[in-house]
Amino acid sequence: MSLQGKEIQEMHKKYILQSWGKAGQDVLPVEKAKGIYFWDYDGNKYADMASLLVCSNLGHELPEIVDAIKEQADKMCFMAPAYASEPKSRLAKMLVEAAGEDTYKRVFFTNAGAESNENAIKMARMVTGRTKIFSCYRSYHGATLGSSNASGDWRRFAAEIGGANGFVKFMNPHMYRDGYTKGKDDAEVTKKALADLDLQLRYEGTNNVAAILMESIVGANGVILPPDGYMEGVRALCDKYGILMICDEVMAGFFRTGKWFAWQNFDFKPDMITFAKGVTCGYVPLGGVIVNKKIAEYFEENVLQCGLTYSGHTLACAAGVAAMNYYKEHKIGEHVAEMHEIVSAFMNEMAEKHKCIGEARCIGLFGALEVVKNKETREPMQEYGVPGPVMPWIFAELKKRGFATFGRENFIEICPPLIITKEELEEYLPILDEVLTMVDEKYCD
Amino acid sequence: MSLQGKEIQEMHKKYILQSWGKAGQDVLPVEKAKGIYFWDYDGNKYADMASLLVCSNLGHELPEIVDAIKEQADKMCFMAPAYASEPKSRLAKMLVEAAGEDTYKRVFFTNAGAESNENAIKMARMVTGRTKIFSCYRSYHGATLGSSNASGDWRRFAAEIGGANGFVKFMNPHMYRDGYTKGKDDAEVTKKALADLDLQLRYEGTNNVAAILMESIVGANGVILPPDGYMEGVRALCDKYGILMICDEVMAGFFRTGKWFAWQNFDFKPDMITFAKGVTCGYVPLGGVIVNKKIAEYFEENVLQCGLTYSGHTLACAAGVAAMNYYKEHKIGEHVAEMHEIVSAFMNEMAEKHKCIGEARCIGLFGALEVVKNKETREPMQEYGVPGPVMPWIFAELKKRGFATFGRENFIEICPPLIITKEELEEYLPILDEVLTMVDEKYCD
Ligand SMILES: Cc1ncc(COP(=O)(O)O)c(C=O)c1O
Ligand SMILES: Cc1ncc(COP(=O)(O)O)c(C=O)c1O
Repeated sequence: MSLQGKEIQEMHKKYILQSWGKAGQDVLPVEKAKGIYFWDYDGNKYADMASLLVCSNLGHELPEIVDAIKEQADKMCFMAPAYASEPKSRLAKMLVEAAGEDTYKRVFFTNAGAESNENAIKMARMVTGRTKIFSCYRSYHGATLGSSNASGDWRRFAAEIGGANGFVKFMNPHMYRDGYTKGKDDAEVTKKALADLDLQLRYEGTNNVAAILMESIVGANGVILPPDGYMEGVRALCDKYGILMICDEVMAGFFRTGKWFAWQNFDFKPDMITFAKGVTCGYVPLGGVIVNKKIAEYFEENVLQCGLTYSGHTLACAAGVAAMNYYKEHKIGEHVAEMHEIVSAFMNEMAEKHKCIGEARCIGLFGALEVVKNKETREPMQEYGVPGPVMPWIFAELKKRGFATFGRENFIEICPPLIITKEELEEYLPILDEVLTMVDEKYCD
Repeated sequence: MSLQGKEIQEMHKKYILQSWGKAGQDVLPVEKAKGIYFWDYDGNKYADMASLLVCSNLGHELPEIVDAIKEQADKMCFMAPAYASEPKSRLAKMLVEAAGEDTYKRVFFTNAGAESNENAIKMARMVTGRTKIFSCYRSYHGATLGSSNASGDWRRFAAEIGGANGFVKFMNPHMYRDGYTKGKDDAEVTKKALADLDLQLRYEGTNNVAAILMESIVGANGVILPPDGYMEGVRALCDKYGILMICDEVMAGFFRTGKWFAWQNFDFKPDMITFAKGVTCGYVPLGGVIVNKKIAEYFEENVLQCGLTYSGHTLACAAGVAAMNYYKEHKIGEHVAEMHEIVSAFMNEMAEKHKCIGEARCIGLFGALEVVKNKETREPMQEYGVPGPVMPWIFAELKKRGFATFGRENFIEICPPLIITKEELEEYLPILDEVLTMVDEKYCD
């Protein structure tokens, strides 16, 4: 490695506490990024097929966002929440419009995803006067105490030492893993899952439940597509019991699924929308909560007991305005629909062809391949909660070939920047095919 | 107001959920900022005598930080936590060095203050296997569920709906409010406060206590200077019982008190240091936790169950490197010591002269004036938790005269950017004198 790369790697190894890992490991030092690519210090190029952590929706170093940041940096990097600033005002308006001004009214800005869910939870409790927050086992909502206790996957365990009260988990359907077939068994699964949820809500006391918090499409737990009618059914339960519905759009929002927000693919509307990632594509940290009229009006009459130093951060909001303009002006929704055809055809082909692929799931450019040991029995390559060597091996083999992505126990995320072209897909998708062939041979029954 | 200012104000009023307030109010739209000043859209100039929320330590639009942001924006705004990047590696090293490489070893990066305390709490629980977190009533640590339940002031109430387990509060001394005199009664207060804390720790079960979390100097609750020997005594209790000591340096850090970290004014060392604000001066959101060797080494052996999308955000770390360099190269610590002489002489004069000022407290450029109705009885201008009209009136009168600051129940914060000059102080401090004279006449017994 180049001397500079080596030095940066060494300092990282020596001084950094690593997210979700052990400290003191070697990690790849990255020098620069552009479009769907990034480069290490030896000039190796990687296609960013997961948009980093499914946040770089418009790829890296988009001139429109970079210029907006530089321009705002020259004017005013930050003005406190107590004051109005142009980027904050404009971005709030754009977000309410994207969600739909008929239903939504106001925005509370935060720094990122975890804080957005924290604040939505607090608001739900303040507005309803109720305590309990229902959320899904197959979910991730962030790593602060509230968001973490609302999360379903193992990343909440450290936040459960001590713990928080009033977080109730339910099992959201995962048709493939539960032994069903999407497109065939939806009605049956939806009916059963909603009946179970209804029963659980009544056992917890419907009058005690402030909100149901759900990812519109579960992301980091494997792009789980809900059975038809499920999300609408959850909304109906919320209405029946006076419960608020919060959709976490941190990962699924901002055209990842082809729409501004993933819930817009369904036939319901949440009361609150939490967002982060795609709003600025990660160029500057930003997140927030969009609330409907009822909640907005509650906080016109009552003090909002939420706040943070950087709520509505000026530089971040300027990046947000630029990203939102780009999504609109470049009709990213339409481009995603076109690229979806290519990606999903490819993914379906992989599921047909490879012993190791049990199911292909994709909405917009939000995709996951379910990796199995045995296609017949659907035995996962690695059981939930049981780490093993195969998945890391797959990601390493892909990366060696310039295909950077991530995944977990038993799935590979395919979530490239939304600006990816047909040519770029045609160049990189075959790499996945090649690695999957190796998996078939090496690891499948 | 100018048309543009009016439009921005209207959009804010219509679309924003306001931190710690009611939505739908008029707030001042700010057009630009530079040095210690900012300007509204009518060209009115304000001296930022609170560094916004005590974060703009190096003032606004410092060319060194702005240029670093623009340069990094051109290279790479963001690379994910799984990769090393130059600004992240460099900043981690600089932070460990500033804290002292003899004792400290690694940094975990977050987006801001609340998240920093969240992660320190999680780490303390993981490392010790204990649950309880002790913190002070007179404190603020952020608004997410964990940080908020650790906070002492009223801003935690919404986060207590539902609540979190294992947060135990103790009353930290506030010599003036408790009826003592700083510089005279310190030994007595320290002895009593430590005995009380020791007893409470034993009643809670010392083996159950993971950490004591404290602001090194309590900031947003009134720049409360601890009695001599108190912080050292808390450290000794921690050592006695195997409890970790976390110092929250979010507000007090980065030369606010004349040192890199406020605890460096005392004779002890915390196990973890949480920071935010001054590390980038708010130009880009950034925070984090610096941990000592013991904790760092624990997470070399054990997976750190902490993470966030923007941990070690590239653009933010670039701003941090620039700010850290500026603090060092421009000997900001020495400048703060000089300016402190002017500010603290002025504040003491105010406490002598005005009926409404009960006490002046200042360390470095971290100052607060205690506002009283009656100097003899120390009756506060407004009781804790009882909102009233006088303090908002004071802040409005100051702002009318171009002196922007904030405060709470019964104190006025005086925390200008650390780069403020003698001339600027001489121009603006007399405004405070003028307004305090009005308070004497209007509101004092
Ligand atoms: C759906 C969802 N919610 C919340 C979060 C947490 O966001 P952050 O890491 O910015 O706190 C994530 C992060 O991946 C996410 O995918
Ligand atoms: C001492 C202290 N800790 C934590 C925080 C919370 O920081 P943030 O608002 O960035 O979440 C603050 C904010 O004022 C603070 O003063």
